[in-house]
This record gives sequence, C-alpha cells and structure tokens, in this order.
Amino acid sequence: MSRYRMVVRYDGTNYVGYQVQPNGNTIQAELEKALKKVHKGEPVKVTASGRTDARVHAMGQVIHFDTPLSIPPDNWKRALTSILPDDIHIKSVEQVAEDFHARYDTIGKEYRYFVRNHKEPDLFRRHYTHHVKASLDMDAMVKACHYLKGENDFTSFCSPKTDIKGSKVRTIYEADVKKQLDEVIFTFRGSGFLYNMVRILVGTLLEVGRNERTPEDILAIIEAKDRGAAGKTAPPQGLFLWEVFY
Amino acid sequence: MSRYRMVVRYDGTNYVGYQVQPNGNTIQAELEKALKKVHKGEPVKVTASGRTDARVHAMGQVIHFDTPLSIPPDNWKRALTSILPDDIHIKSVEQVAEDFHARYDTIGKEYRYFVRNHKEPDLFRRHYTHHVKASLDMDAMVKACHYLKGENDFTSFCSPKTDIKGSKVRTIYEADVKKQLDEVIFTFRGSGFLYNMVRILVGTLLEVGRNERTPEDILAIIEAKDRGAAGKTAPPQGLFLWEVFY
Repeated sequence: MSRYRMVVRYDGTNYVGYQVQPNGNTIQAELEKALKKVHKGEPVKVTASGRTDARVHAMGQVIHFDTPLSIPPDNWKRALTSILPDDIHIKSVEQVAEDFHARYDTIGKEYRYFVRNHKEPDLFRRHYTHHVKASLDMDAMVKACHYLKGENDFTSFCSPKTDIKGSKVRTIYEADVKKQLDEVIFTFRGSGFLYNMVRILVGTLLEVGRNERTPEDILAIIEAKDRGAAGKTAPPQGLFLWEVFY
Repeated sequence: MSRYRMVVRYDGTNYVGYQVQPNGNTIQAELEKALKKVHKGEPVKVTASGRTDARVHAMGQVIHFDTPLSIPPDNWKRALTSILPDDIHIKSVEQVAEDFHARYDTIGKEYRYFVRNHKEPDLFRRHYTHHVKASLDMDAMVKACHYLKGENDFTSFCSPKTDIKGSKVRTIYEADVKKQLDEVIFTFRGSGFLYNMVRILVGTLLEVGRNERTPEDILAIIEAKDRGAAGKTAPPQGLFLWEVFY
C-alpha cells in the first residue's frame, strides 16, 4: 500500500459540510466516491486535516488515503479531476511516508474570512462573502486583532456544541484584518481552532468594527471563558480553510 | 398608470435565460412574480432591453413596467428586493415618461466577457468566467479588436438560429481586450448585437489569441457573411450584459 497526500480546493456552497453525514452531500463522500471509481468499486477511506461546516470553502484542505495502485501523482490528479464535480478541485497529489497523517500531523492552520463591506450586495460574491452594510472601523478591528494573538483559553470563542472535552487552550500566531477594495479580509493562523472559533472571532471583531464593543473588550471576553461573552457567530459562506501546516 | 424603469443585476447561473419559456426558471418570470405579489395578485408585464441566454449574467439589464400604484422609487426597490431570490438584485428604480420603452429606445449596449486564463481553474469564478488554459497572445487580440470596430454586416458573427430577418448591419463603437491578473476581459460597445454575436466574437478572438488565426483574418471573416467563417461560440457563463444606453 502507498499513502498519498492531496491538497483539495472546494466551493462548499452546495455541501452540508466536509464530513460524511446521513443527510446531504459532503466533500468527503465525493472524494471517496471518486476514489472508489478509480479502484474499480473497492472502497477507499479518506482522512482530512479536519472538518469544515456547511457552506464553508477550502483553498487548501489536506487529505490522505492509502492505495494498492501505483499511479504517478499527476495521473491521480487528472483521473480524480475528471470524475469529481466541478466544485471540488485537486490542487496537488504527492506520495508521502506511510506514517504521514493528515489530521494528527498538523502543526497549524490558516483561515481567511471575507466580508463584503458596501451598502449594496455583490451578487457574484454572495456565496463567498458575508455582506455587511455598515461602515467598519478598521483601526479598531486591527487593534482588537492584536489582543487575540498568543496562547489563550479560547472557551469564549468555542461553540457549546463542540465535542472537545479537553483543553481549549490554543495559540494564535497571526490575527490580521485588511481592506481590499470593497472587501474586508480577516486572516487567522494558529496551532488549532475550536468548533466555530473563526466565525465567532469574526462576529466579535465585526462588533468592534461597528463600535459596539471596544478593542480592549477582547481581553475581558477571553478572560470570561464563556461563549455568552463573545459576539455572534458570523455566517459560514465567508469562511475559507486557507492552508494546513505540517 | 405610471411607468417605471429599473436597472436589474442578475446571476444567470440557475436560469434558462431572461425571457419566459415553457420550461425552466427565467429572470422575467421572477420579476413578474415579484411584481404580481406587490400588486396583490394582479399580473404585471415586464419589458426588457433584450434577452440574455441561459447562464448569461447582467450587471445592468434595463426593464420597464406600468403600475397603478404610487410608491416612491426607493420603496419599490426595497419591496422587490425582499421578494426576489438572492441571485436577482434591483440596482435602481425611477419613474419615467409614459412613452419610455426599454427595448425600442435603446441606442446601444455594452457587453463584457471574462476569461480565466491560467493552467488551473478558479473554482470560485467558474460560473462567471470561461476557463482557457493556453496562454493567449494579447497583442494579436488587441489588433484583431481594431478590425471589428465600425459599421459592418455581422452575419458571420450571428447564430443561424436568429429570428432576425432584416439587416445584420451593426456598429461596434468599442472593442477592447485587457488582462487583469489571471483574467482576460473583453469589452464590446455597439449600436446593437445579433444573436450570440458577443460569444462568437470572443470565440473567434480567442482563436486569434491562440495564434490559430491572424488578426487580419477578422476582415475576411466579416467579408464572408457566413457563420461558418468565424470561430466557435464561447460558452455563456463568461458573458455579462454590462450596460444599456438610451
């Protein structure tokens, strides 16, 4: 058996999420269906760096799978691309050591979140941005981002629906927000992210941007270790799993 | 009765075209359904500057309708926006003279066509661009565009499925192509456009871009007055009805 690692891009709009579920299309199911076809009906299990939620996108999800077939990486890419639906794209394929693990070996992830910040919606970006009409205080949000960096217990930024029982301490290496034309782009790089964490971070930062909270409030929110202390969960369609680090 | 003129944007991806047809969703049907709702069940007919095909988009389609209701333009916009699906957006509404006609009064139109020119597809622009992997000779396409300008019989650039029996002479005021990052953008402004004309123009220009034809071939193609002389019809999803002039 050989182990392959693939970087996968997807438009999550028409999926109920990454992970196989009883109802609705999932990215994992599509990948496994395509691999099964290449393996002439033999099931192949795919392991990802982690899940993404319904309507969330990926520029660089990483998965691994094992196969008895010896096919050059480029041919894997071509074969799978021709089978997969047009909203899932294989960016790269490489053979890796048999003990590589897409989930356990991650040392960090980068997420980006895109906000359309304009009075009018942008029809052609509606599945890839969260539309915020109110003008946003960029300086306040930049300042608030600084308070997010470092090692902290992010319980306040974790959905209570999480199945994590252990520590909610994570390290955010990079938290940044910038404006590009009519879009406000949030970037978060960290050791790991809790359930809904990026969307709650963005929801809270947008409240700072609307001057409903001060940048310094971030410190008290972290301190509270209470989901109720943070802001609303921003909607899924603005969120991209951008890169996974190993 | 008062006549209103609206500028309408739409994402044509999920429609079989602008004009009402026996099968499939159309933009016109959605507009008339929304207006019927505002008029408490009374049907309202909508007249557009012209049709757009299945999967073709609009940044500035113009329509008119008559109504016995006196509602300020901004409230029209709000009311219709709340009823219409999220892929149709009312950009503006204004009351116009009772003899304004969205189709007969047009003096010109602008179309733009977007090509993704990169080895890899862009998932998130797949419904709004035509993907061309081969590198394109921009200079040759710019030169070819020059030969398209002016008053000509554009029979060679008209689908034989057209229902136009009269003259196929049209004037192209502006034909332009430029590169912006990984996208090649074609702009055409003219007195009017024949059925599939912009898509055949783009298909032919792309053949020039791939050096399969020379810029000068455009002159012979126009001269031929034969659809068979021109290139392939480019696919619909890259095409936008950008603006209608009155």
